Parts: sequence; structure tokens; C-alpha cells
Amino acid sequence: MFSIVLLGTGNVAHHLFDIFQLQKDIQVKQVFGRSSNALSHFSIKCDTTTNTKHIIDADIYIIAVSDSSIAKVSELLLDKNGLVVHTSGSVPMNAIKSKDRGVFYPLQTFTKDKKVDFSEIPICVEANSDKDLKTLKLLAGKISSSINEISSLKRKKLHLAAVFANNFTNHMYSIASEICAEENLPFDLLKSLIEETTDKLRFLSPGEAQTGPAKRNDVFTMKNHLQELANPMHKKLYQLLSESIKS
Amino acid sequence: MFSIVLLGTGNVAHHLFDIFQLQKDIQVKQVFGRSSNALSHFSIKCDTTTNTKHIIDADIYIIAVSDSSIAKVSELLLDKNGLVVHTSGSVPMNAIKSKDRGVFYPLQTFTKDKKVDFSEIPICVEANSDKDLKTLKLLAGKISSSINEISSLKRKKLHLAAVFANNFTNHMYSIASEICAEENLPFDLLKSLIEETTDKLRFLSPGEAQTGPAKRNDVFTMKNHLQELANPMHKKLYQLLSESIKS
Repeated sequence: MFSIVLLGTGNVAHHLFDIFQLQKDIQVKQVFGRSSNALSHFSIKCDTTTNTKHIIDADIYIIAVSDSSIAKVSELLLDKNGLVVHTSGSVPMNAIKSKDRGVFYPLQTFTKDKKVDFSEIPICVEANSDKDLKTLKLLAGKISSSINEISSLKRKKLHLAAVFANNFTNHMYSIASEICAEENLPFDLLKSLIEETTDKLRFLSPGEAQTGPAKRNDVFTMKNHLQELANPMHKKLYQLLSESIKS
Repeated sequence: MFSIVLLGTGNVAHHLFDIFQLQKDIQVKQVFGRSSNALSHFSIKCDTTTNTKHIIDADIYIIAVSDSSIAKVSELLLDKNGLVVHTSGSVPMNAIKSKDRGVFYPLQTFTKDKKVDFSEIPICVEANSDKDLKTLKLLAGKISSSINEISSLKRKKLHLAAVFANNFTNHMYSIASEICAEENLPFDLLKSLIEETTDKLRFLSPGEAQTGPAKRNDVFTMKNHLQELANPMHKKLYQLLSESIKS
């Protein structure tokens, strides 16, 4: 049985709380947050507090707050005996000052009120000792089938790769959606294409799957596309992305 | 019953041929191509020819060749009575010189040997007359549930949007995969994230779904990421994409 105190009330905290609730061997004993309002989702199901002095004892403290607040929140736990971990992709483990520290990073994008299948989410773990590493692997194994020991340095790179695969990809969808809107074309027309683009990755590497005017150096089509793009930023992006694909 | 001659032997021709074969009301009478070798996939199942003089009569001629060859191939059909269409996203209908002309554009990315679910693929149709438009809608309805009448001008914009949603998105995956490779991290770690990024679009617009350091103007993380990127082109793209998300 793992007893857990969760610190934070954002998307990651919500999703972890909900999945932990479903596990027999995991007990979230308390959720700590800055505002009572943000704690309301949790307070129906477990103890909550906004008072730093009322944080209770537990096996594991999971800090699921914004990157810039992790160090500060971890300082609230210096007198605790439990293992203290954060859930961030880009913050080093040593941002936490406790002796027993680690990282429990679920590599996923979490949206409010949208359920995800945790069993498929890679959990990247890191710890200061073999004992704590083992604990985190056991905890990760309760909710996911993808448990990965990854150092702070590698995790940082992984998070950077995730920015391209998720944030920048989504921005491509935004631009596509804007171009559609200019012509009153429904963005839904692109949904099947978007799904197939992802689905291809089951069979091909992204390098092998690359198609389009830039890949085949179709200068005529690229010139046409540049003329059609009204937004100067979209033009710049089209040029640079095409150049990058060609290189 | 539609009788069809297919001109071209690439991915689009392959996929259209295979789906047409499954329909009772569609008969592909002949496939025309430049090389016997490229015709071998088709010759087991129907008549094929490399000889422009041997192209037979049919209700519909579907030109599925590279954009730059469409006009030239359409000239081979000037003495035919059937409706002549091409399958391109970016070429205007009037690139075809026949009196009865149109467009039959399946908005999808086709990969050799990878089956797609045609019923979900938007077919964009356009024709020179109401009669021919009706014919193309009927044909499209045999293989898909998404039939869309779209003018050459709008189709061109749609194709441009598709370049962002497909080609450029795939390039984001390429870069993510390169960053992973630099650290010997398996690209598979990002698969669940990539799927969720797409899945979110069922509930949110891309604008609403946007997250990441650029969106929240997290200057510290962005500066860190730029330092970590070894490839100068990746650096440039990171900067421009972040600027575009912020704007």
C-alpha cells in the first residue's frame, strides 16, 4: 500500500488523483492546494488543506505544480520522512531539496475533463537511491504498462521532443484551421487526414512517411502556396518548414 | 453502373483501383500507364495498356498522375466522350481540356500497401455541368460518406491547409524523432502523446487545445530549450513556431 499526499490542483494533479482513486493499493491521503476552490474536486473524496502546516505524513509526496513553483513547494516538505517527487518533464530532480527525492513524469498532455488511458502513458521515473527508484517503479506499474527509468538530462531532451510532437504539431493544426476558416471550409474535412498522418507512424518512421511539395522539391506548388498565404507569419513558417524538409 | 478508365499507376491510382474493385456498381475497364512494370498490380484484374492509342471508351476517365502531368495526359482523351476528371488537390479543373471535365479529389495521404478506410475520406468533387457533378457525387457516394462540392479555388486552399496538417505535422514528428535519437531515447515514448494530441481535436478546436511553453510565455523554459537544440535549423524553427504561437 502506498500512502500519498498530492501537492497541486492542476490538470496533472486531477488526472493522477483520479487514476490513483481506482487502485486498491494506493491511498491518496491528502491534497494540498493554495485555494479552497481549486480543492473542491478533491475534498469530496479525501482530506484537503490550504495550510502548509497541516500537511500530513505519507510514503510519497507528489508535487504537481507549475515548473517554477516546484522548488518552493518542495521546501514545505523538508521536515517530512517520505519520498518527495515532482511530475515535470523539464525540471531536474535536484530542484527538490529533500534527501529522498525523485521524479514521476507521465509523458502526456492532460486536458481538463478529458479522460486518458493511463495504461498507455509512459511514466518516466528517476530517484536518488535504488530503494526509492524501486518504489517509484512499483507505483508507476500500478497505473501504466510503460515504466521508464530516465535521467534528468535525458528527460529534458524528451520534453523538448514532446514540444515538437505535441505543442508545435497542434500549432500546425491551428494554422490549417485558420486557412480553412478564411474560405469557410470546415476544419473537419482534415480530420481523416490528420488521423492517417498519425496512424502511419505505426508502420513507418516519420522520415519515411514524409511526403508533400517540399519533400519532392515541387518548386511550382510551393511558389503557388506562398502566394496564397495571406498571413505573413504563415508565409515565413511555410518557407522555413519547407527548407527544413528539403535539407 | 459506372465504367472507368484509370490513368496513372501511383499511390492514388492503386488505392482508388482497390476500393473500386469492391463495388458492384463500378467497373474499372482499363488502367493506362507508362510502364508495363507499374501496371502489373492492375493487369491481373483488368485490361491495361501503355499505348495511348489503345485507351478504350468509358463513362469516366480518372487521371491520377503527378500534378505537372495532368494537362498532358488529359490531351490524350480529347476524342473521348466520357467525363474526364483528375484527383489533385492543387490543380484547377480547367487544366483538363475535355468538354466534360471535373475533379475527384480524395483528401487523404496514401501510402503504398497501407489500407485506408475510404468511408471516412472526404471526396471533393467539382464539374463543368450539373449532370457531371451529379455523376461524380454518385460515384463518390459509392466509396465514401463524405461528399463535398468544392470549387477549384477553395480546393487549392484546402490542399494548402492539408500541407500544414499533414506534411508539416509529420516533419514535427521527424524532428522529435531526431531529438530522441540523439539521446538514444525510443521515439515510441512519444506515441501516446501524439495520439492524444490528435484525439483532443474531437473535443477542442486546435486554438483551445494549444499548450506548452510558448503558449504560456514561459521564457525560462524556451531559453533552456533553445540552448539544448544542437541543430541550427531546429533552433530557427523552435523560435519561429514559438513566436507564431505567442502572436
